[in-house]
Amino acid sequence: MPATHDPKTPAWPPRSAPRLFVADELDMGSIIAIEGNQAHYLSRVMRVGEGDIVILCDDITGEWAARISSVGKRRIEAEAVERLRAREAVPDFWLCPALVKKDRFDLILEKATELGVARIRPVTTRRAVVDKLNAERARTVTVEAAEQCARTALPVVDAPEKLDALLRDWPQDRTLYFADETGGEPASAAFARYKVPAALLIGPEGGFDDAERAAIRALPQAVPIGLGPRILRAETAAIAATAMWMAVAGDWAA
Amino acid sequence: MPATHDPKTPAWPPRSAPRLFVADELDMGSIIAIEGNQAHYLSRVMRVGEGDIVILCDDITGEWAARISSVGKRRIEAEAVERLRAREAVPDFWLCPALVKKDRFDLILEKATELGVARIRPVTTRRAVVDKLNAERARTVTVEAAEQCARTALPVVDAPEKLDALLRDWPQDRTLYFADETGGEPASAAFARYKVPAALLIGPEGGFDDAERAAIRALPQAVPIGLGPRILRAETAAIAATAMWMAVAGDWAA
Repeated sequence: MPATHDPKTPAWPPRSAPRLFVADELDMGSIIAIEGNQAHYLSRVMRVGEGDIVILCDDITGEWAARISSVGKRRIEAEAVERLRAREAVPDFWLCPALVKKDRFDLILEKATELGVARIRPVTTRRAVVDKLNAERARTVTVEAAEQCARTALPVVDAPEKLDALLRDWPQDRTLYFADETGGEPASAAFARYKVPAALLIGPEGGFDDAERAAIRALPQAVPIGLGPRILRAETAAIAATAMWMAVAGDWAA
Repeated sequence: MPATHDPKTPAWPPRSAPRLFVADELDMGSIIAIEGNQAHYLSRVMRVGEGDIVILCDDITGEWAARISSVGKRRIEAEAVERLRAREAVPDFWLCPALVKKDRFDLILEKATELGVARIRPVTTRRAVVDKLNAERARTVTVEAAEQCARTALPVVDAPEKLDALLRDWPQDRTLYFADETGGEPASAAFARYKVPAALLIGPEGGFDDAERAAIRALPQAVPIGLGPRILRAETAAIAATAMWMAVAGDWAA
């Protein structure tokens, strides 16, 4: 190691090392090819060169330090040199948000990733003004959130499904909390009663309609919850209730 | 009332009535002048005409139905005809967030308004990359959030102040929860112990530095809290912890 003016040992991995999720499973000595936007980001934005260290995650084995072995115009290669952390465990909690407008739904995806949601199951409902989700964009948002926050686990993001279909096949052992504008048990008390496995269903702007609400309430696993006296926007309800679940029934107190 | 095809009585106030905060205190029969962007919004976007109903809030007396009495090019007048609700009470909770980049800080202001924060005291810290807040923009964000969510109370938004100054004059009876990345009591347990008056201090991206953390911890009213095992962005920590405080110590269970 060359002498430096810094009397302390340099941090390992370097604090400035870029962090990326890659599609391939990582192993000691793996050579990983990085192409497309990620290659552009590394070479043009972060200006990495041969020998530099990057942090790679694969959402399978965890987080690795990798050393850049070649920098081409469109392709960068890096060799995995040390596993830094195993893929983290997250609580067995699903978020089932009704689709809402793009920027608001992006916020749900970003914050759910940060908060440690294991799986996101978007739902289409009668009052929703949106019924499609761009899967590639959803992937980009969750990956960027995980890269920013040093998460080693990505949430699974399912294709949107109709509320009826979601309820029809609901797992017998999984509590389905749902934010009911017409009232329900205070969320913190309800969350403390049934912990994992659990899920949270959040309606669209304007809420579920009466028939939907009746269908949800008819599910034996459903527990209506209230989120206080103020009207919350859909994405605020999703973020607020997810944070509360993590605090009360997830791993915040562990 | 004219005969209509709708067999039900029309909703009062009409569901489509625009909602606006105005600067003047309202009273029965007050004539309110609406100018500038708000007049443009009413006449060009919402296309209101004489006799139409709008909802006006003044952040003092509450929420009023007002009838448009004249529509000019740059000025609209409305007469307050019925007080619909008194200004709501919100829990005595302050949010003291370190300044962060504009779009992220806007999100804090928007969600704090929705969640019912009484006062926002922005703080400048050594690691913050931002040290100014556009007061007019902050007002716009909180007013729009309140209009959207049918809030009748706006949070007070103070000018930013240095952390040292905030701590020096801290009220003796007000608990100061602070999100401490180095660890603290799980938030939900801490929030249940000391309820109102309370405040929540959230650091910038990168957290407080050691000297700042020591100064906060030296305050007798300070209670360090933890927000779980994952790294949260500053605005996520602010939103998540505010929601939890409302649920545990605020009025969500009332």
